[in-house]
Amino acid sequence: MYYIGVDLGGTKIAIGLVDKKGHLVYKDSTPTLNERDNEEIIDDIVKLSKKIMEEKGLTKEDIISIGVGSPGTCNPNDGIIVKAYNLGFDNLNIRKMIEERIGIKTYVDNDANCAAFGEFKVGAGEAYNSALVITLGTGLGGGLILNGNIISGSYYGGGEFGHMVLSVDGRQCTCGRKGCWEAYSSATALIKATREAAKANPSSKINDIVNNIDEITAKTPFDAVLLGDKVAKDVIDEYILYLAEGIVNMINCFEPEIIVLGGGVSAQGEVILVPLNKLINEKAFGGNTKTTIGIATLGNDAGIIGAALLGSN
Amino acid sequence: MYYIGVDLGGTKIAIGLVDKKGHLVYKDSTPTLNERDNEEIIDDIVKLSKKIMEEKGLTKEDIISIGVGSPGTCNPNDGIIVKAYNLGFDNLNIRKMIEERIGIKTYVDNDANCAAFGEFKVGAGEAYNSALVITLGTGLGGGLILNGNIISGSYYGGGEFGHMVLSVDGRQCTCGRKGCWEAYSSATALIKATREAAKANPSSKINDIVNNIDEITAKTPFDAVLLGDKVAKDVIDEYILYLAEGIVNMINCFEPEIIVLGGGVSAQGEVILVPLNKLINEKAFGGNTKTTIGIATLGNDAGIIGAALLGSN
Repeated sequence: MYYIGVDLGGTKIAIGLVDKKGHLVYKDSTPTLNERDNEEIIDDIVKLSKKIMEEKGLTKEDIISIGVGSPGTCNPNDGIIVKAYNLGFDNLNIRKMIEERIGIKTYVDNDANCAAFGEFKVGAGEAYNSALVITLGTGLGGGLILNGNIISGSYYGGGEFGHMVLSVDGRQCTCGRKGCWEAYSSATALIKATREAAKANPSSKINDIVNNIDEITAKTPFDAVLLGDKVAKDVIDEYILYLAEGIVNMINCFEPEIIVLGGGVSAQGEVILVPLNKLINEKAFGGNTKTTIGIATLGNDAGIIGAALLGSN
Repeated sequence: MYYIGVDLGGTKIAIGLVDKKGHLVYKDSTPTLNERDNEEIIDDIVKLSKKIMEEKGLTKEDIISIGVGSPGTCNPNDGIIVKAYNLGFDNLNIRKMIEERIGIKTYVDNDANCAAFGEFKVGAGEAYNSALVITLGTGLGGGLILNGNIISGSYYGGGEFGHMVLSVDGRQCTCGRKGCWEAYSSATALIKATREAAKANPSSKINDIVNNIDEITAKTPFDAVLLGDKVAKDVIDEYILYLAEGIVNMINCFEPEIIVLGGGVSAQGEVILVPLNKLINEKAFGGNTKTTIGIATLGNDAGIIGAALLGSN
C-alpha cells in the first residue's frame, strides 16, 4: 500500500509515491502553467497520479490516499482551497474534484504545513510528539504540529510564524508590517544584510569571494567568516540573534518538543546550532529550555512526503 | 453533582463549589502561609474542601472532582507541581496527596491556565472552540486552549505569552530579556509609562487627578484622556499599539477563534476594543482577521471556576 503526495507550486506540480514507512519511492513533475483553468490543473494532478500507478504496476486499491499541499489558505476539514492567489484558486473543492476523477480518498493542506508534517512524521521530528518546523528560505515559513495535529488556526489563517513582529517599527516586511521575523531571519534577509555590509565595507573579504555583490548568496557570509572576516561575522551574529529571539518566543508560547530548521541556511548545521543553542538557553523563560533544535532532513521532498502522509493521521 | 475548585496563591488559598453549569455557588478562603511545610498547605486544601461539603450538606459522592490551580510549572498528566518557588513546592504530587486524604479524583494545572480555562468554558470564550486569554495585570499572563485542550507546552513550560519579545533590545523585562510584551502591555507597564509621562509633563491633567504620581493607577491615564489630556492620549495610544502588535503576532501564529482580555485594564471595554480592533485588522496577515477580541467576564473567580472545571474535560 502506498500514498500519493502532490506538492502543488506556482511553477511546478511535483508528485511522488510514498510507501507506508514514509519513503519516497518514485517522483515525477509537470509545469503548473498557473494561468490555466483550475480544471486543467486538477486534470494534470490526476493524470500524473494515474501515470505513477501505471509505471509502478499499481491499481487504485493499492493507494491509501492522495494528499495535496497547496499554497494559500486551505481548509483541510472540507478539502477546499479557500484562496490561492498564484494559482487563481478561489474556494476550490479540490478534494471533491480529485475524488470524482480518480476514486481515491483525497486530503489537502497548506504547502508549508505539509512540509512541516513530513519532517514531523519521518524527518528530523520523527521521534517527537510535537514539532515546529521553520523554513529559512525566500520567506520564513513554518508549520506547527502539536500531539500529531497540524495547527492551522481556527479559520486556517494561522501558521504565519514569519509574520511575528520581533521589532516594532523595525525592518519593513513584504506583508506591510514592520519588524517581522521574516525580515530578519529569512535567507533573503541574510543576503540583503550581507550585500549592504559588503557595500559599506569595501575591504571585507565578502567582496573577495564574489565578483559583484549581486552574486552574494546566503552561503557567502558563512564562507567569509571562515576566512576570518569580521564584517561577515557581525552579519551572521545579528542573523543568529534574531533567529534565537524568534525561536525563544515560540518556546515561551507553546514549547514544542523540537524546533526543526529547514531551508538553505540550515545546511550550515552546527555553525548555526552551537551559537543558537547558547542564546536560546540564555533567553528562554526560566533558562535552559528542554526543546531540542534540529536540522531538517528531507530537503525539498518534505512537501511531497508530508502531503502524502496527510492520509496516515 | 458539583466540582470543587482551588485557586492556590502565594498569599491565599481560595476555594469554591462549582455546579455542573460552571456557576460558582459557594466560596471560602484561608491564608496560604506559604512558609509552611507542603503537607500543611495540602491539609488546609482538604480541610476547606470538607468544610464546603459540610456547609452545603454534600458527601464525597456529590463531588465529581477537585481541581487545583497552582503557580509555577505543573504537570497535569501526572498531577504533579514540578516547581512553584513562592510555595516552596518541588515535584510535589498534589493529586496523590489530595486523593489519599479525601478520596476524590483530583486535577492540577497552572493558575493562569485555569483562569483561561474558566473563561473558555463558561466566560467570554464559552461559545468558541479555541481561545487565548490574556490577563493584563501585574504581569501579562495567559492561557491558550485549542479544540478544548489547554496548550501548556511539551514540558509544561509554554504559555508564557507575556515573554514574547516585541522589541529586540527594548524595555527591560523582569525575566531578564529585553522588549517582552509584558514590559509594554501589563498594567504595571501602563502605570510606569503614565508616571513617567506625568513627571515629564507637569502641565498634564494626569497631575491634576492625583496628589502625587505614586497614586497613579492603570485607570488614571484613561480618566485623563476623558478630560482631553494629550499626554495621557499618547501613553494610551502607545499602550494599545503594543497590545495590538502582540495580539496580531498571536493571531498570525495560531489564530484562535477568540482572544479574551482580562485584568484591570480590560475593564475599559470599548475604550480599548475600538482602537485595538482597528489596529489588529490593519496589521493581521492578509488583513481583517476573523478572530474575535472580547473582554473577560468572570473576574477574579475565573481561576477557581477553571480549576474546578478541569475535571469536566
